Amino acid sequence: MRLATLKRGGRDGTLVAVSRDSSRVAEVAGYATLQSALDDWGAAQSSLKAAVEAAEAGGAAALGDFAAPLPRAWQWLDGSAFPTHGDLMQTAFNLPPIETAKPLMYQGMSHRFIAPADDVPLPSEADGIDFEGEFGVVTGDVPMGVSAAEALGHIRLVMLINDWSLRTLAPAEMKTGFGWVQAKPACSAAPFAVTPDELGEAWADGRVCLPLTVEVDGEWFGHPNGRAMAYGFHELVAHAAATRDLPAGTIIGSGTVSNAEHAEVGSTCISERRAIEMIAGGKPETGFLRFGTRVRMQAGPFGAIDQRVVKR
Amino acid sequence: MRLATLKRGGRDGTLVAVSRDSSRVAEVAGYATLQSALDDWGAAQSSLKAAVEAAEAGGAAALGDFAAPLPRAWQWLDGSAFPTHGDLMQTAFNLPPIETAKPLMYQGMSHRFIAPADDVPLPSEADGIDFEGEFGVVTGDVPMGVSAAEALGHIRLVMLINDWSLRTLAPAEMKTGFGWVQAKPACSAAPFAVTPDELGEAWADGRVCLPLTVEVDGEWFGHPNGRAMAYGFHELVAHAAATRDLPAGTIIGSGTVSNAEHAEVGSTCISERRAIEMIAGGKPETGFLRFGTRVRMQAGPFGAIDQRVVKR
Repeated sequence: MRLATLKRGGRDGTLVAVSRDSSRVAEVAGYATLQSALDDWGAAQSSLKAAVEAAEAGGAAALGDFAAPLPRAWQWLDGSAFPTHGDLMQTAFNLPPIETAKPLMYQGMSHRFIAPADDVPLPSEADGIDFEGEFGVVTGDVPMGVSAAEALGHIRLVMLINDWSLRTLAPAEMKTGFGWVQAKPACSAAPFAVTPDELGEAWADGRVCLPLTVEVDGEWFGHPNGRAMAYGFHELVAHAAATRDLPAGTIIGSGTVSNAEHAEVGSTCISERRAIEMIAGGKPETGFLRFGTRVRMQAGPFGAIDQRVVKR
Repeated sequence: MRLATLKRGGRDGTLVAVSRDSSRVAEVAGYATLQSALDDWGAAQSSLKAAVEAAEAGGAAALGDFAAPLPRAWQWLDGSAFPTHGDLMQTAFNLPPIETAKPLMYQGMSHRFIAPADDVPLPSEADGIDFEGEFGVVTGDVPMGVSAAEALGHIRLVMLINDWSLRTLAPAEMKTGFGWVQAKPACSAAPFAVTPDELGEAWADGRVCLPLTVEVDGEWFGHPNGRAMAYGFHELVAHAAATRDLPAGTIIGSGTVSNAEHAEVGSTCISERRAIEMIAGGKPETGFLRFGTRVRMQAGPFGAIDQRVVKR
């Protein structure tokens, strides 16, 4: 099933199920918000299924009507599970490889996910404004110490996310070892959060085996496939839950989708394309974003993120 | 005024005002939770003041009745603003100094703050279980780009926090540059969140000028003063808000309270005491915590955190 959140209602919007052709929606009896359904997932199933049926003859909805599936979430933990991305960055910037036998992960701001067609307000072009195309999963309640195999059963929904990044600020924060605060403002999300079964064979080994297409001002930027994760989402969930319970509605990100075949499939962030340019020609060619630029991301059944970066 | 949250009610507990002698409480008309009052702070003032009056003749409450002031929060950003702590760790472990002209800060888990007298469940003694005594502030809604001077006016409440830390896991996570996930499980909080004016002269230059006393199984461990921050809380709030709005109920931490006079005043975490032992005698003497150990923290008007570490 595909679920979404309309902007109307309170800070958490209004939960709806979405028709197969994405044009119609229906509210969910007894569950005003996606968070409330995630808190009570088993009991909510019959209401959710009824709403999916009703959506086929439901009210019309356009991209601008949707908020992020979770306009705010209790937790956002973002991985960096595509090894090609890390390898390219290390080669281009002559960085030592990150030594760890575990998945890479940081905790990011989760109190706001920007609606898929809303403007993205940021303070300064000088901060090196960049996008990162990612897949993400939404968990149910996950107990501390869960195994990766068990974690697979706690994945409720899959999402498409743009993890906005400020590249000028990032290296200094990373060097402190404390992770990123200023370099990682609010993320954006595509409108439709889908259950893993909805992906069919494209959900395999805890990975979203679909191309993620990025366009910048209407020009193709990349379409690498989510299959190439070194760790599946179930392993990322288990890593996140090693010393903490995860509350229902936790969002876990894949990190920038990146493939070894980047010469053919491109990238999902400017920083990686710049790294490829540096390796090939000694210097980056592609600039970071200017205010007014439009970034569009799309993948499988998730709908589009289609936004303009604007001065705050 | 002093505010607290009783465990009864939903996941966010029940907001109460607290009597001057800390033994009595009264609910707040129209504001069931602290988050709801923070969302509507100006309008809530008359109800809060009436509840403070009513608390003097209110119902009795003991430490075990209280949840953390915010049992869950939308955002927890923890600083490391006491330079002595960083200096000691770098000297003991022969680390290069962290080069940054900005405050150090990471984003930690905020979906659970443990109640002040509840047990603290953790998976393994082998993880190097440690406490960190900190002061923290709770903000109202803070706009992106706020100045430090303006930020002072957005500080609503001051808290006492124990930032539990798993030292065996921390260095590897720090080395990735991504910050801590597994090394930073849920924090605990003292019961009473107080408005800055309640601190009188102990609230100066955005700092809590009070000793923070730590006891481990009834033995004194340290009582350094919160005055010695290199950055005031207003500067930490401005740092946090450089590229994001902060929602009401954001908690910003000071980092481990630490003083240059550590020979007299001790420390507020085991890791720092071990660093002092290593510098003095070549090796650490004090072990990390065992299950069953009791850690008590207390400062000014915040009440006590008094908890046992237990196996999950």
